[in-house]
Amino acid sequence: ELSDKLETLHPADIAYILEALPIEQRLIVWDLVKANRDGEILIEVSDAVRESLIATMSREELFEATEQLDTDEIADLAPDLPQAVMRDVFKSLPVEEREQLRAAMSYPEDCVGALMDFDMVTIREDVTLEVVSRYLRRFDELPDHTDQLFVVDREDRFKGVLPLNLLLVNEPELDVATLVKHETVTLHPDDQAEQAAQAFERYDLVSAPVVDEDGKLVGRVTVNAVVDFIREESETDLLNQAGLREEEDIFASVWKSAQNRWMWLALNLCTAFFASRVIGSFEDTIEKFVALATLMPIVAGIAGNSGNQTTTIIIRSLALGQITQASARHLLIKELAISGLNGLVWGSVAGLFAYALYHSIPLGLVMASAMLLNLLLGAIVGLVVPLAMQRFGRDPAIGSSVLLTAITDSGGFFIFLGLATIFLIH
Amino acid sequence: ELSDKLETLHPADIAYILEALPIEQRLIVWDLVKANRDGEILIEVSDAVRESLIATMSREELFEATEQLDTDEIADLAPDLPQAVMRDVFKSLPVEEREQLRAAMSYPEDCVGALMDFDMVTIREDVTLEVVSRYLRRFDELPDHTDQLFVVDREDRFKGVLPLNLLLVNEPELDVATLVKHETVTLHPDDQAEQAAQAFERYDLVSAPVVDEDGKLVGRVTVNAVVDFIREESETDLLNQAGLREEEDIFASVWKSAQNRWMWLALNLCTAFFASRVIGSFEDTIEKFVALATLMPIVAGIAGNSGNQTTTIIIRSLALGQITQASARHLLIKELAISGLNGLVWGSVAGLFAYALYHSIPLGLVMASAMLLNLLLGAIVGLVVPLAMQRFGRDPAIGSSVLLTAITDSGGFFIFLGLATIFLIH
Ligand SMILES: [Mg+2]
Ligand SMILES: [Mg+2]
Ligand SMILES: [Mg+2]
Ligand SMILES: [Mg+2]
Ligand SMILES: [Mg+2]
Ligand SMILES: [Mg+2]
Ligand SMILES: [Mg+2]
Ligand SMILES: [Mg+2]
Ligand SMILES: [Mg+2]
Ligand SMILES: [Mg+2]
Ligand SMILES: [Mg+2]
Ligand SMILES: [Mg+2]
Ligand SMILES: [Mg+2]
Repeated sequence: ELSDKLETLHPADIAYILEALPIEQRLIVWDLVKANRDGEILIEVSDAVRESLIATMSREELFEATEQLDTDEIADLAPDLPQAVMRDVFKSLPVEEREQLRAAMSYPEDCVGALMDFDMVTIREDVTLEVVSRYLRRFDELPDHTDQLFVVDREDRFKGVLPLNLLLVNEPELDVATLVKHETVTLHPDDQAEQAAQAFERYDLVSAPVVDEDGKLVGRVTVNAVVDFIREESETDLLNQAGLREEEDIFASVWKSAQNRWMWLALNLCTAFFASRVIGSFEDTIEKFVALATLMPIVAGIAGNSGNQTTTIIIRSLALGQITQASARHLLIKELAISGLNGLVWGSVAGLFAYALYHSIPLGLVMASAMLLNLLLGAIVGLVVPLAMQRFGRDPAIGSSVLLTAITDSGGFFIFLGLATIFLIH
Repeated sequence: ELSDKLETLHPADIAYILEALPIEQRLIVWDLVKANRDGEILIEVSDAVRESLIATMSREELFEATEQLDTDEIADLAPDLPQAVMRDVFKSLPVEEREQLRAAMSYPEDCVGALMDFDMVTIREDVTLEVVSRYLRRFDELPDHTDQLFVVDREDRFKGVLPLNLLLVNEPELDVATLVKHETVTLHPDDQAEQAAQAFERYDLVSAPVVDEDGKLVGRVTVNAVVDFIREESETDLLNQAGLREEEDIFASVWKSAQNRWMWLALNLCTAFFASRVIGSFEDTIEKFVALATLMPIVAGIAGNSGNQTTTIIIRSLALGQITQASARHLLIKELAISGLNGLVWGSVAGLFAYALYHSIPLGLVMASAMLLNLLLGAIVGLVVPLAMQRFGRDPAIGSSVLLTAITDSGGFFIFLGLATIFLIH
């Protein structure tokens, strides 16, 4: 009966159920799913879950799963499929689809080519709307997300679009040529997917043509692919911030999960060792004035938090394209001013805290100045690191925070203990 | 000439330019924009920039800007408009639109009611496609994102949808009744916007009807509103993680930006003061063994990083609805196992590091066990905090990380210095 229930569900709903089940139960449900739905479900599940499902399937089962899919969908699955299955698939496809699959697989994941599908409805310019309507009526159904027809010439060169909207409100006797929109957003298969996503957001698109360097229409991107891309991007950003390299199946093995997290911990351990040696070089000072050991984490921590706020603002502004050469200088001054203000306010609070505890005015002053200086350091680093990463073509969201914390921690210990050595000990 | 250039640009592009300009230049460009485009641009810019533009506009200018907008768009602007302007707007609207505006303004920002617009094309069930086509041809244009027509009865009760797709591929003599889809995703104005976004993602929707408790069609949600919502949500998540309460205009005043960041720094300072007192209670121990002061930040920091990875995984899984009562226990065991594994590996590394520096086997063992214990603590806290927040109806993404760091820092110092006091000093 569960099997009957599953049959009535949308593939995305079945995918959702599979995601929430522990491995053993997941595989039981997967067995109950009719084989002719395997393909559409495999493309809906997350990478981690997909891997766990594909691992249990035979070469024949996988081949049959791909037979239900469009070429762009097969290309999405391809990285997870065994080579033998992909060979079978290529052999079985008609020439045109084989070329599509080869093309779709050739683009890196973050390119328009990887978001693209091939379900375009194309028409010629020199016919009337009446003819177009008759042509459409011969379809059993139009491809999903068909909000416009693509106008091409005999060589498949892209001429413009005819929104269905216009087809519906205009008189059937009119020619396509009089209504075709030549100025429309077109994408190139090598464009960054993020750029396409921004175009969809900005111009509220449902579909957009993909045109190659010869001006030929090669595919289209639809808004549902863009929505998936945006959601995945934002998840990746959150995961990366915590040093998780990829999404984790919450039911994956301990060993696999641990591997996903190791790099980050190892990296942080290295920076912690370094900070520890910075403190170590002031052991004599600490021995004479143990209060320093209790206060030093405050100086390091707050500058890390503050610098992280700066980094977040900068990364967001970079993503929105708001930062120019001129505004970068302006921003540095602004972030320094904010940190200076914060340094005065929170430095005073921390200074008073230190004074209240240890009744030493010099200690209070050292505390306050160290806070101020380290907050300024945090602002500079928080601004410069993401800008530099961007300049060198790296994603500023990845790794900025380790570098920042490394510097504000070690810097904080050095500044605070250094000032203490100078003003409290000598 | 700049003014002419601006006239040819899409409002979203002008908004983009305004976002990237410092205040003074921004206002110069804003003055060059033709007044009859003010409205459509105001709804495209971010909240921070919108505020800066509205501040310079007179009551009349603002009123004229709203005249160009749909009621759902006016509702989006309403929180930023002076009360006097809103009074003018209400007075000027015809009764039906006044009701729409009142309705749209009554929903909180994260509800379907706030995403909804009122541009539905409705038809009756008892007509032929031919009649529908003739009806559509009387429009100058269909509303954007019209991928389906909404079928209602005489009392405006929602009956189902007729996808344009079906209108186009079927013969004109057919009745709407034979093609109407009764089983379709419908939203309720009080639904969470996030739920609507998930429905759009899952079922690849372009538009969806909004139906009230009496079964009446009150509006529709379109995919462009959903895309904007998803993007804003993910930005908010990233900002909140860094303790930024709201988006910041990068050209806003230092004072305003500082205020946006204070709460977080104050909160972190409090937890740092507490951690500092934990260290303070072990001053005698540190005095006898200064090496402890150099090593203690390592123990605290790594557990914070590791616990943060756990929290991130849990928050993501909560958002995907993957966590059930049963899987929560499973997850706790798994996270403890991963942390145990990490504790053994990285604890040994840190223990060796301590031994290599200070040639004390007991110190190395204390270091290793403290790392292990604090990583386990981090795993428990990293899992329990977001789950508890979710249980009490709060957004687990906000505040989890302060609480986590507070506990792993103070806990790390307590465990390490406590073990040292027992095994190294006595
Ligand atoms: Mg199966
Ligand atoms: Mg497709
Ligand atoms: Mg693809
Ligand atoms: Mg037909
Ligand atoms: Mg938009
Ligand atoms: Mg990114
Ligand atoms: Mg820290
Ligand atoms: Mg103006
Ligand atoms: Mg509208
Ligand atoms: Mg609204
Ligand atoms: Mg007409
Ligand atoms: Mg989808
Ligand atoms: Mg949220």
